[in-house]
Formats: sequence, C-alpha cells, structure tokens
Amino acid sequence: SLAHRCHHRSTAMLDVPFLPFCAFLGTLGLLCVAMVGTWCQHWRGGFSLDGSSRTFNWHPVLMVTGLVVLYGAAALVYRIPNTWSGPKLPWKVLHGSLALGAFILTVLGLAAVFCFHNSQGTPNMYSLHSWMGLGTVLLFSCQWAAGFGEFLLPWAPAWLRALYKPIHVFFGSTILLLSVASCASGINEKLFFSLKNGTTAYKLLPAEAVFANTLGLLILIFGVLVVAALARPSWKRPDSDSLDSRQ
Amino acid sequence: SLAHRCHHRSTAMLDVPFLPFCAFLGTLGLLCVAMVGTWCQHWRGGFSLDGSSRTFNWHPVLMVTGLVVLYGAAALVYRIPNTWSGPKLPWKVLHGSLALGAFILTVLGLAAVFCFHNSQGTPNMYSLHSWMGLGTVLLFSCQWAAGFGEFLLPWAPAWLRALYKPIHVFFGSTILLLSVASCASGINEKLFFSLKNGTTAYKLLPAEAVFANTLGLLILIFGVLVVAALARPSWKRPDSDSLDSRQ
Repeated sequence: SLAHRCHHRSTAMLDVPFLPFCAFLGTLGLLCVAMVGTWCQHWRGGFSLDGSSRTFNWHPVLMVTGLVVLYGAAALVYRIPNTWSGPKLPWKVLHGSLALGAFILTVLGLAAVFCFHNSQGTPNMYSLHSWMGLGTVLLFSCQWAAGFGEFLLPWAPAWLRALYKPIHVFFGSTILLLSVASCASGINEKLFFSLKNGTTAYKLLPAEAVFANTLGLLILIFGVLVVAALARPSWKRPDSDSLDSRQ
Repeated sequence: SLAHRCHHRSTAMLDVPFLPFCAFLGTLGLLCVAMVGTWCQHWRGGFSLDGSSRTFNWHPVLMVTGLVVLYGAAALVYRIPNTWSGPKLPWKVLHGSLALGAFILTVLGLAAVFCFHNSQGTPNMYSLHSWMGLGTVLLFSCQWAAGFGEFLLPWAPAWLRALYKPIHVFFGSTILLLSVASCASGINEKLFFSLKNGTTAYKLLPAEAVFANTLGLLILIFGVLVVAALARPSWKRPDSDSLDSRQ
C-alpha cells in the first residue's frame, strides 16, 4: 500500500559510510569509559571491594562500560556489512555474547551500589535514578532472555520470530536510551552528593564538575548516535525481512 | 540498491492504528502535566512570582507542559492521516505554531529557574541537568528557526529543503529524548534538594518521592512512545519524499 512505501530518503542522515561512523562511535565510547574511570580514580578515591565509596566507584565505571558502550557495540553488530552474507549464526552468537558481557558488567555494577548502600546502612531503590536504572536492567534481562530463546535456540517457530523481531529491535534502542538517561541522572546525583560544601561545592563548578558534566553529555551523545545509526534504513541488513525466520 | 529496500516489516511494532494510540499518548501527556502540577501545588507550596521556591515551581510545570507534551503534539502532526491529502501549508502552520507554543513555555520555564536562582544568590548553569537542559533548548531554538526558514518561508530552494528535511526529522526525535532525560535528572535533583532530612528524607521514600518518581517514569515512557510513533514507517505520510520540496 501507499502507506508502506519506502521512506529511506526522508529518514537518511548525511551520507556517511557506516564503518568510519562506527570507528568514530568506538572512539567516543572508549573516551566515555576512560573518562568515567579517570573521574573515579582521580577525584573519587579509586577502587576497592571494602564497601566504602571506593566500592561504589565500580558502579559508574561498570554501568558506562557495560550498559552503554558494550551494549551499543552489541546493538550495532548487524549493521556491519560483512554480516549481510554467509551464515547468520556466528553473528547471532557474537551479538548475544556481547550483550551477555554487557549484562554481566551491568549486574556487577548493580552489586557494587547495593554492597555500598548495605555496608553504609543506606536504603536501596528510593531515587528516580534507581527506579529508572533498575527498570532499564530488568528490561535488558527480558530482552536478552527473549532474544536467546527466540533467535538462538532452534525451537521458536518462524511466525513467532517474525512477530518478536520488531519488538526486540524497538526495545534494543529504547533500553540504550533509558540507559544513557539513567547515567545522566546518576552523574548529576553523585556530583550533588560528593561536592557538598566548601571550595569544591558543585555550584562553584570545580574542575571535577566540569569533567563529569562533560562525561554526561558525551554519554548522551553516544546513545543518541548509536540509536540514530540503528534507525538509519540504508545501514540495515538489506534482506533483514526475508532472513528473519531462518536459523 | 539492495541496501535501500523497504524494511517496514522488521521495524513495524504491534499493528495498532495511529489515532487510538495518539489518544492514549494524549491521555498520558495530560496525566504528566496534571501530576507535575499536583506535585508542585500539593507538596512544594504552589506558585508565585516572588522569586521564592514558589517561583521555581513554574519551572517543572512549564518544561513538562512545553518541552515534553506540547512538543510531542507538534512532532506528531504529520502522522495524522488527514494531513496526507490536500494542501500541506495549513498543517505546516499548525506544526510550527504548536512548536512555537512549546518554545514559549520552555523559555518561560527557563526564566522561572533563572529568576529563582538570581533572587536566592544561587549560581546558574553548574549542574549536568542544567547543561543538558539548556543544550536541549538551544537545539530546539535552532530547530524551530531552521524549520521556519526552510519550510514555511517561500525562499528556500527545493534541494536545500530535501537536504535539510532528514536533519530536521532526526533532531525532532533527539530533542524530545534529551528533553525527557533532562526532566528525569531534574526531578531526581529536586527531590534530593527538597527532601533532605527528617521524616520526609528522600531515602525514606515518602509519598511525595513515590509520586514524583512515578511522574519521572511516565515522562520517560511518553517520550519513548512518541519517538517510536514518529519512527514507525507505516504511520508516516506515504508521499513524504515526493512532497518534500513543495510549498
């Protein structure tokens, strides 16, 4: 029907090729990981497993590395033109493995903040940041389990795969956007906690605040650019429809 | 080319018609506006123009109403099937007017927080929330001005309109996502400020915290659903390409 005609011209962005864009995204992602590590190491006292704020510091590092950067890499696998020919199974395994790695880092990141709260006697799960963040992780766990069950295990019938695939694609982007929004609220919250008074108050915008605010903006830009790359029609696997239901 | 084939089947979500979904989105948006108003009126002392925290209270109400709900309505205009036939100019004027209304409320919302900060002697623009939020508003002002200049004024040549349209579409969704992410970090921050100690501390999760956390989640869901509706191929104007360059 008319309503189903192609719209790639109206949704295509500037005509850049995928791989250089992907290299740029990779650099941006690594910069985010390096910056969150630097923030925690240089200004927040580094890392440990003793239940102190140095245990908490694993939380931002693991979340940015897992639920943002590694998750973004997993999401982009099927946009690599090499994946468009030959057997699909190895790429499915790569996609699922990267996502599983992201999920493991995410769970460790949750463990870090729960351990910190519990050893300090602070309640868990009261802030909007924690609600958003845990909601995002729960969606991610459903996404991974459903993806594994529908696309990697051999038993799902073709019609179920075809029905589920657009849902998987939709939640793939949604989870990343919720993840970067959670990061932004978490960085904001941590800076209010850590920079409370004296000459380093957050409102006086010390170097740490400029650094971590910039990190927050870069994470947001990373998330938006990955979702934009995923949405771009001309970067999608050309026969993604016809192969939906094949193993 | 193969890479340019249609992919509507793989990106289509559940097969719901647009108008009922739009009515649901409208209800959700009005609920968000009602809840942010209730939060500020019932728990935060109501509204005034005296530079106190009652002046600040206009900030969340105007931002949610303008930069989230009215902005979302403006973005969805071209998804109404009635807009697909007949002259396009009246719908362009409606789209631009709703966006202008959203922009005016947004600027008033910024004025409220600057007025509050200035009368309290608090610095402006130090938190990540403020950086994200002002960045979003700046992008929105560029978006509105460029849209007005390219699509409503008669002087832009067809090639320039065709070049700019995908950029306008991309930033349309991006600005809304940045806006809801800014709302989430702002609600989180405000609750930490307001619920500091005593029996209503944020960490004890009083009724206000549950209410405002829920508001934050509903705003995020609203933003994600609007962007999903915008991205859905079968809800797009069928001839959006061919009419790009017409007045």
